Amino acid sequence: MKNPLLCDIGNTTFSFSDGKKAFVDDFDISSIKEKVYYISVNQYWEKRLSMQENWINLRSFVDFKKYYKSMGIDRVMACEAVQDAVVIDAGSAITVDVIKRGTHQGGYIYPGLAALAKCFKDISPALEVSFNFDIDLDKMPKNTEDALTYGAIAPLLSNIREISKDLPVYLTGGDAERFKPFIPDSTVSQDLVFKGMKKVLEEH
Amino acid sequence: MKNPLLCDIGNTTFSFSDGKKAFVDDFDISSIKEKVYYISVNQYWEKRLSMQENWINLRSFVDFKKYYKSMGIDRVMACEAVQDAVVIDAGSAITVDVIKRGTHQGGYIYPGLAALAKCFKDISPALEVSFNFDIDLDKMPKNTEDALTYGAIAPLLSNIREISKDLPVYLTGGDAERFKPFIPDSTVSQDLVFKGMKKVLEEH
Repeated sequence: MKNPLLCDIGNTTFSFSDGKKAFVDDFDISSIKEKVYYISVNQYWEKRLSMQENWINLRSFVDFKKYYKSMGIDRVMACEAVQDAVVIDAGSAITVDVIKRGTHQGGYIYPGLAALAKCFKDISPALEVSFNFDIDLDKMPKNTEDALTYGAIAPLLSNIREISKDLPVYLTGGDAERFKPFIPDSTVSQDLVFKGMKKVLEEH
Repeated sequence: MKNPLLCDIGNTTFSFSDGKKAFVDDFDISSIKEKVYYISVNQYWEKRLSMQENWINLRSFVDFKKYYKSMGIDRVMACEAVQDAVVIDAGSAITVDVIKRGTHQGGYIYPGLAALAKCFKDISPALEVSFNFDIDLDKMPKNTEDALTYGAIAPLLSNIREISKDLPVYLTGGDAERFKPFIPDSTVSQDLVFKGMKKVLEEH
């Protein structure tokens, strides 16, 4: 099993390790005849695929004692991919996990950038602005746009500096490239979840 | 003018320096005959009160060159109250401002606690929990409730530690007491805005 087909099912998308993608709403099960090892945060599809012989759910391959029961399976797999690291998955939510000697030390959840923009707008129409990713975070902001951009990302970055210390930082998820310039020596690794899935599969 | 009557008008409430409060929706102008010095973030009331002889808007008393044009007047007044400090106003939004030798160095805006709770819930129903303010922030979270509480407050606290250094930290606003236990040596000062208003008035 050199290159098993892997699939990461989110709330909106099927992502395959061979690069194919499909939306959950119009995914055709019969389009995949071969064996697929998958994870799913999408409960509808997890249930539906449990009845398909060629779809193998990797959830049962994971030792959840190492994590916690309600932790997202995609987050677990990204953690499985590393030995000593801080793993940041910047998507609709931003998850930050610390792994030392292969053991999950815990992690937290921060709102994603789009969610934060909507959150500010919901507080007051005066706080509806586009974030300025060219901001210099070494200076305290002196206009609303920078004040909101700083508020959205600087606190998170301060905390990552505190908890990462000498650990390498891996970024994944749709907004990974947004954060990379602000985290020196961080690495963007968009296949972290697939790496973790492959490792779990090989060790099983 | 030993104790002038001051009024801080928000989006929902009139707060008077003598302790009286009233909702903006049913405030009766004729109930106040004496002279009132006020600030207002509420544009409707600011306009309406501009036609009342006994209501004096302190906005024009402020040198806005020291701040920035779109900065909330309540936030400006809280900054006027201090010489060297970090001022945190934890309300529907949380504003964090740095003042050194009486000069505003800049500041930022972070979502308020209620807004963050709603923000998480909007991302996913799985992220709808109550925050756990008994959390030990020295440990990385290992359950969803703590992961969301940590994500809501620990990044902000990390940043405040970074920017405050030797400056005293003043807390004001509805959630001030929530944050106090997490910021050693911080001071809750609910009359910071009135203090600033009084100073601006006296220096005028």
